[in-house]
Amino acid sequence: MFSCPIPISDYPSVLLSHGSGGKLTQQLIQKIFFPQFQNAFLEPLHDGAIVEINGIRFAFSTDSYVVNPIFFPGGNIGELAVNGTVNDVAMCGAKPLFLSCAFIIEEGFAMEELWRIVQSMQGAAKKANVQIITGDTKVVDKGKGDKIFINTSGIGIVGKERNISPKNVNVGDKIILSGTIAEHGIAIMSMREGLQFETEIQSDTAPLNDLVETMFSASNNIHVLRDATRGGVASVLNEIAESAHKGIGITEDKIPVKEEVTGACEILGFDPLYIANEGKLLAFVEKNDAEKILIAMRQHPFGKNATIIGEVVDEHSGVVVMKSKIGGTRVVDMLSGEQLPRIC
Amino acid sequence: MFSCPIPISDYPSVLLSHGSGGKLTQQLIQKIFFPQFQNAFLEPLHDGAIVEINGIRFAFSTDSYVVNPIFFPGGNIGELAVNGTVNDVAMCGAKPLFLSCAFIIEEGFAMEELWRIVQSMQGAAKKANVQIITGDTKVVDKGKGDKIFINTSGIGIVGKERNISPKNVNVGDKIILSGTIAEHGIAIMSMREGLQFETEIQSDTAPLNDLVETMFSASNNIHVLRDATRGGVASVLNEIAESAHKGIGITEDKIPVKEEVTGACEILGFDPLYIANEGKLLAFVEKNDAEKILIAMRQHPFGKNATIIGEVVDEHSGVVVMKSKIGGTRVVDMLSGEQLPRIC
Repeated sequence: MFSCPIPISDYPSVLLSHGSGGKLTQQLIQKIFFPQFQNAFLEPLHDGAIVEINGIRFAFSTDSYVVNPIFFPGGNIGELAVNGTVNDVAMCGAKPLFLSCAFIIEEGFAMEELWRIVQSMQGAAKKANVQIITGDTKVVDKGKGDKIFINTSGIGIVGKERNISPKNVNVGDKIILSGTIAEHGIAIMSMREGLQFETEIQSDTAPLNDLVETMFSASNNIHVLRDATRGGVASVLNEIAESAHKGIGITEDKIPVKEEVTGACEILGFDPLYIANEGKLLAFVEKNDAEKILIAMRQHPFGKNATIIGEVVDEHSGVVVMKSKIGGTRVVDMLSGEQLPRIC
Repeated sequence: MFSCPIPISDYPSVLLSHGSGGKLTQQLIQKIFFPQFQNAFLEPLHDGAIVEINGIRFAFSTDSYVVNPIFFPGGNIGELAVNGTVNDVAMCGAKPLFLSCAFIIEEGFAMEELWRIVQSMQGAAKKANVQIITGDTKVVDKGKGDKIFINTSGIGIVGKERNISPKNVNVGDKIILSGTIAEHGIAIMSMREGLQFETEIQSDTAPLNDLVETMFSASNNIHVLRDATRGGVASVLNEIAESAHKGIGITEDKIPVKEEVTGACEILGFDPLYIANEGKLLAFVEKNDAEKILIAMRQHPFGKNATIIGEVVDEHSGVVVMKSKIGGTRVVDMLSGEQLPRIC
């Protein structure tokens, strides 16, 4: 028994920021979880683990959803829980097949709302072509939960010839973003803040597994795939830069953001680069194959606004640098505090 | 979109009893979840699902743990979360291999306690010979959770020649119970009620996968395996009687209960048959193989008090009848309300 590796003087208790996907989440993973659960498969900066069983490579991923509010423009917690885990499995280069689903429900939660959520989950599973095959329900006393929390875990098979790992990132790799960013986070925050816009901003929650299959049909030279959820595009890029020990350069005006989202970000004081997406991925691909992967993506409904936003560079290792719209460059750092709690 | 299949007039909202493993939990599963998530693999009365992928049969199971208090005599929520899912996978006749682990932590939770829980989880994983390979952490605002909730999901491989299903239950099958009952539930309740006994009652939390392997080494004629968690031995027997469309007869004085547990049950007003266990299983086995399975079990530390408590009978289909100690018989019904909330 050793003492707690996060000095009590720094963080005697868990903060909201420990769950935000930023620096403190990384600290928690690297100091508390990783040293204990050490094994060959556990990669803290992956969306899931890949294991080989009887010669077949499986991807396995889990996520709990605690989004507040549970119903929001463009979706609800149930749909999000299915799409989120489907995406985490897909980001391992795997074809998701089966999901589990576990509910923690607060006593007094409306049966009708549970029913709506369960219906959405089944609808989302159907769209994503996965099956929810096992589940669990727990109920906690009123005031000891918050309406409903949902955990989904997913299993998929990793196709042969596919090898997704930050280790494969090379200088020159192109970075593709699959579409416009920051919609999920802004949809949630607008609702919490009671903001109304002329055009309602909807969550982009979507299953990305079919888009991933489309990308692999174009080329197997995809080195890293990540969906840009908690912490947004900026956090994902920082994590990859760090784990790949490479520099990353991106160009601000290549990053697609819907006009109303830009407006909402200005009102709310947010940088869209740090806002959660639930239907957007980042791909690091071999430079010579970037164009054909991009063309394939653009033919898919969830990739029609795909664009190359930057590349891996042979300088500033571990650091993400952005060429800004007004000229000049700035470092895009990892989020250190809490920007948006309970976004997913 | 259909309307909610649980009439609003009956249960407009979710009650604690919907999570207790009794009649209302069954209603929730059968009316809300089952009709939506319908597929060939989903069996509502199983601890997990079994699917075939590339010719290999996999078991997949999930459980969220919301036990209160999180530290209790004999264990803590982390150990319980590992053992519980290991057991659910093992009850499919599978050898558990990999676990996921997802935390929902209440803001302000002591880092030191998180660290102790994570250490216990790793210790439990090691003892059960499984690996925790992927995870997730969410933090919710103070007052919107209760210290820590943990979800674990597990994957295992089902051995050839093994076929666990209520459908295989035959009249004449012997029912084996692996040891003394009601310890987990009573350990938790004693702590909540501030009761002290001469001998501290400890949770029986334990991984049963190795015991299951021992049983299969003795015979493959094991028809059903269930760990007797929420709702206890009585609920499991009722579920099997119902899904197998068979009657079950058990003998009260064959059921091992520690003296101090009997005493505590009397003080608290509980029937040990309905109290949760976290390291005990029930097996329905071919009558001619019962003795050799029993002998094998008794040589295992987690089966040393194993005993045959009854058999499957050709009468009172769907009903469990117990020969009581004082003579006479009584129906052992399914628990309808909430006996012990947040026991696991």
